[in-house]
Amino acid sequence: MNTERCGRIVEKMKRQGMDQMIISDPTAIFYLLGKWIYPGERLHALYLDSDGQTRFVLNRLFPQEEDLGVPITYYDDVEDGVEILSRYVSREGVIGVDKNWPARFLLRLQELRGGVRYLNGSRIVDKVRQIKDADERRRMKESALKIDEVIGRLIPWTVRGLTERELNAKCLELIRDVGFSRPSFDPITAYGKGAADPHHITDDSRGRPGDCVILDIGGMWQNYASDTTRTVFIGEVSSRQREIYETVLEANRRGIEAAKAGNRMCDVDRAGRDYIASKGFGQYFTHRIGHSIGLEDHEVGDVSLANDEIIEPGQCFSVEPGIYIPEEGIGVRIEDIVCITETGCDVLNESPKALTVVPD
Amino acid sequence: MNTERCGRIVEKMKRQGMDQMIISDPTAIFYLLGKWIYPGERLHALYLDSDGQTRFVLNRLFPQEEDLGVPITYYDDVEDGVEILSRYVSREGVIGVDKNWPARFLLRLQELRGGVRYLNGSRIVDKVRQIKDADERRRMKESALKIDEVIGRLIPWTVRGLTERELNAKCLELIRDVGFSRPSFDPITAYGKGAADPHHITDDSRGRPGDCVILDIGGMWQNYASDTTRTVFIGEVSSRQREIYETVLEANRRGIEAAKAGNRMCDVDRAGRDYIASKGFGQYFTHRIGHSIGLEDHEVGDVSLANDEIIEPGQCFSVEPGIYIPEEGIGVRIEDIVCITETGCDVLNESPKALTVVPD
Repeated sequence: MNTERCGRIVEKMKRQGMDQMIISDPTAIFYLLGKWIYPGERLHALYLDSDGQTRFVLNRLFPQEEDLGVPITYYDDVEDGVEILSRYVSREGVIGVDKNWPARFLLRLQELRGGVRYLNGSRIVDKVRQIKDADERRRMKESALKIDEVIGRLIPWTVRGLTERELNAKCLELIRDVGFSRPSFDPITAYGKGAADPHHITDDSRGRPGDCVILDIGGMWQNYASDTTRTVFIGEVSSRQREIYETVLEANRRGIEAAKAGNRMCDVDRAGRDYIASKGFGQYFTHRIGHSIGLEDHEVGDVSLANDEIIEPGQCFSVEPGIYIPEEGIGVRIEDIVCITETGCDVLNESPKALTVVPD
Repeated sequence: MNTERCGRIVEKMKRQGMDQMIISDPTAIFYLLGKWIYPGERLHALYLDSDGQTRFVLNRLFPQEEDLGVPITYYDDVEDGVEILSRYVSREGVIGVDKNWPARFLLRLQELRGGVRYLNGSRIVDKVRQIKDADERRRMKESALKIDEVIGRLIPWTVRGLTERELNAKCLELIRDVGFSRPSFDPITAYGKGAADPHHITDDSRGRPGDCVILDIGGMWQNYASDTTRTVFIGEVSSRQREIYETVLEANRRGIEAAKAGNRMCDVDRAGRDYIASKGFGQYFTHRIGHSIGLEDHEVGDVSLANDEIIEPGQCFSVEPGIYIPEEGIGVRIEDIVCITETGCDVLNESPKALTVVPD
């Protein structure tokens, strides 16, 4: 049990008048206990209360040999796990439950503990997870540098006549090769028309001179995700492509500049979006500018106009503006992960962003 | 919308005093609408009431071009989908919700419609799904015959020196080859000691003369699962192995004999289990005798001592007794899918079950 992380959750619980909490998301449990446990459809629940009491209710099929720093109550398949959990739940007050807790468990607990007020507790847990501690920041940085290495090694392959699918396979090979345990999402390797279509599915088309190539890739390193995008050009670049590239790059720069404590998440999106609109490409930037990242590639905390939460030191998120013009076969996206500091942000990725034409 | 299936759900709702129902499981929605829709973490809800009113609330990212026979209300990412759903939910009475509906949706609906009593509605939907109609029975039969073909073609490969992993790859190739869209679960191809360990993971060991070989495989055919197990012997069979094989085969036969309308699910388990115990192998039969099957390989409805529900015509489930003796390196399981009729059951699988020694 990571007592510091647990303490931050309990502190927020107290501040928000939440007396008890049930956590069931395997990633949140790993975050607190340092152990991946996947009980599938079977009940498992990490219970906390605002006095710091903890209890882990788990099916006997998943015995824990090491000390996880939390008392464990096991149940078996013929027992009513929720009833056993309910013995630890007080009969009044407010309880937060995991946002994805299946209704069959929640309804049964409500039947057994009807006097309690039930709320979505993930709002607190996800908020705590957004603030990366020193150990997490180190892993995020290492993960970013490793994916930069993959990008560097992948770019020469964009002009070797591979199909998108073959380029994708090469990317997966490099991701394993640099030491990632797995990709953090299905990589995107798209040429020309494919790059220009945000809904494009990797196919057997090959790059041609003058094509843009979008490489959007990431890996898991010591449980932490990287995620970066670079766009390069095959052999040559038109003035139109150059204009679009420079516009996206400046939007990426402005987004990063707005990524600082005290600003709101929406300010980051607006900084990039307004610039792209000012250049006449507003209608072609069709997605939010970014997402939070950490133990998962996409974590709670959109970087979008709809999110007016204040940015705090320790948050990690992507800044990834893009312009996609299907009718011209042009698509450009540039993505970095930033980590918010006391004075601004660290850009974790170090891959060059200057316009790159790969010799054909 | 399959009005017959929907009608059976509404009929059960009326009988159990459930006025409204929210279905969100993609398989249950396919069962009713004939269309696979996977909105992931986004809300989607098929609403029914006991007067036969229906409504499908769906994110605009998943537009339905064909007529699904149900009025659709779309919402988008900046709208509160549950609030939009709640407009169709009456303010009183009893509502059944999907057993896996995420707590964040259920809690929000409870906030908006606090006067309603919430129950697990999947008990009704899953029960209706257990009873296969004529079209489903035909697909289950075809799926079973196709997996029988795979078993027949796979058996000769058990003596060609392949590792378990290679035999597994061959199995997957045959599953595709006979026309299945995909395996219905990760196939089990285990020799000797591996077959004797119910928790064995496919490895690089090879079969040796005198080994038993467990082949537990299945595929998806026209959305319906097959699942069968045969155990064969390499080159020779000991009298001990023969005794165990014949015991499992008789347990399989007795289980099938007990699989009839009016009996309880536990009677099927008991018929096989008692026989195995009478032969002195009781402690080596370590799992339930079977599971329900249909659109999913494992559906709700265990065939175990814990399930005293009455068997009805149209139910499909596996009868798969086994004996596993790790210290002797012997494991035998024989599995068939049965479909309950008015007078007994059809055994869908037709692969031979007489003891088979594959010439080495």
